[in-house]
Amino acid sequence: MSEMFCDRLLDAIDEKRAPICVGIDPIVESIPAAVREKFKSRNESEAAIDAIFEFTTKVLKIVSQHVPIVKFQSAYFEQHLWEGVEAYYSLIQEAKDMGLLVIGDVKRGDIGSTVAAYAAGHLAEQSSGDDEIATPDAITVNPMLGLDTLEPFIKTAKDYSRGLFVLVRTSNPGSAELQDAPLASGQTWSEMLADKLSVLAADKGLVGSHGWSSLGAVVGATQPHTMQSIRGRLPKSIFLLPGYGAQGATAEMTRMAFRDGRGAIVSASRSILYAHEEAKYSSQFGTNWEKCVEAAVVDMKREVGQVVGIA
Amino acid sequence: MSEMFCDRLLDAIDEKRAPICVGIDPIVESIPAAVREKFKSRNESEAAIDAIFEFTTKVLKIVSQHVPIVKFQSAYFEQHLWEGVEAYYSLIQEAKDMGLLVIGDVKRGDIGSTVAAYAAGHLAEQSSGDDEIATPDAITVNPMLGLDTLEPFIKTAKDYSRGLFVLVRTSNPGSAELQDAPLASGQTWSEMLADKLSVLAADKGLVGSHGWSSLGAVVGATQPHTMQSIRGRLPKSIFLLPGYGAQGATAEMTRMAFRDGRGAIVSASRSILYAHEEAKYSSQFGTNWEKCVEAAVVDMKREVGQVVGIA
Repeated sequence: MSEMFCDRLLDAIDEKRAPICVGIDPIVESIPAAVREKFKSRNESEAAIDAIFEFTTKVLKIVSQHVPIVKFQSAYFEQHLWEGVEAYYSLIQEAKDMGLLVIGDVKRGDIGSTVAAYAAGHLAEQSSGDDEIATPDAITVNPMLGLDTLEPFIKTAKDYSRGLFVLVRTSNPGSAELQDAPLASGQTWSEMLADKLSVLAADKGLVGSHGWSSLGAVVGATQPHTMQSIRGRLPKSIFLLPGYGAQGATAEMTRMAFRDGRGAIVSASRSILYAHEEAKYSSQFGTNWEKCVEAAVVDMKREVGQVVGIA
Repeated sequence: MSEMFCDRLLDAIDEKRAPICVGIDPIVESIPAAVREKFKSRNESEAAIDAIFEFTTKVLKIVSQHVPIVKFQSAYFEQHLWEGVEAYYSLIQEAKDMGLLVIGDVKRGDIGSTVAAYAAGHLAEQSSGDDEIATPDAITVNPMLGLDTLEPFIKTAKDYSRGLFVLVRTSNPGSAELQDAPLASGQTWSEMLADKLSVLAADKGLVGSHGWSSLGAVVGATQPHTMQSIRGRLPKSIFLLPGYGAQGATAEMTRMAFRDGRGAIVSASRSILYAHEEAKYSSQFGTNWEKCVEAAVVDMKREVGQVVGIA
């Protein structure tokens, strides 16, 4: 695990020829009925955890053939309290055993002393009793409290060869209200944030052999001008691009995040996991939800590959 | 539980004559040796959880005599993985059984659909199997992604008579960099955020019989002009004021957060929990750390009471 996160990620993308991340958002009500029904007789919370386990394991097996990295959305595990959190760590272990890199989408942020505790639980190597516990290769973090508060995350990323994706410009409809606020300086708030982050991202301890940094950024692919500006300000940061598919990001917006076919990963969650809900796939594969997941991943891989020029 | 959070909080403050919150930040290395040594023979992670349980239970017993509310810092529980998270919920139950109100300091924030899952796990009523699980009366949330993303938190707060404290202006040294950024409009970024939040806080479904809202704000007591401006912009929001004691907030800064002796709670964590590390208390009480905790709470209650005019 001594190789830097940025290098491991870029190599894994090259190997799979897919700058694509599948988001693991296990929403119990959306899990195919065939999986949920197996656990019907149990009590509700046990049934939910069992369904999440079975569904996620099967999804991981399928997508691990096609993509280099998956992103676990912590909220859908935390919703099921400590049993959900235990499932989160167990399933991260499963993903790593299948050769996948893992992002923990936890969006944590706090004052510095508290961030050190979050970094220990979510990003450092961990153990419970005699067992080593798998933690994500990278996590998403929220910078609102200030750049100083990212330091314990950055130290942990360096110490354990892990990565960070800092929220810079998110993909939700209301994101512009606070993030695109025009400053007196002429920049937007997110552009100022990007400028400040670029200094941290250029730290020699974070930049790998390909010239990219393990301090990446989350940039929603919403408006072309935003993407272009933020890419220019953060030249070394690998971008995690949520919003493809279900949230409606277009190919053109994605294109601007890449530089010579590198430096970004496009992420889709629900449009892959719950492809069986779309007529496009269900009409072809009926109730075989696993075939739907696989077809959706293959389609996304082709579409993104064409945009980036690696198809 | 049908009474609104804002009313329950204000009544509890009146009853205890203490607009004070004790932060539960169980940092294992700082827990008194007398507690830690009892669990020495066990494996490291079990010993940590056991020490956190014993220490926190004793702290809760002491402070419940003096203050209306405690704030659990989630990071120090998450650091111990799912067992830490289980301890978090169990200890919240203990605090509630002692008649304390509880804030979960989780600072969650994400896009709307994901926020609904966080709200379900952290703020709604919860059960595991046949057991009801105690959840906090209020949580802290991060608004960086946009005001639209707060909606599922607000809906859950209304549905379950719970509260929210939205980060507006934090107490850490680097907070000014992003939060005080001057906008083209002449406001700072935090002031704009406060203006937008005030509309949400004035929602009739959130404002209680005392005229205050269950949508509160986290405002670090760092610079008097910041406090004055944000209080003016958020007239109905109860302020949670971190930074008293260990982080160096002064009495004068705290004073401006109150209106007629109401509308704010001053929070201190380490300066209370680890008072045995301060010569002021250890010289008086020796290794009796529980006496140190009690004396520190009583001192803080007197100091804040004098500032607010209720001592």
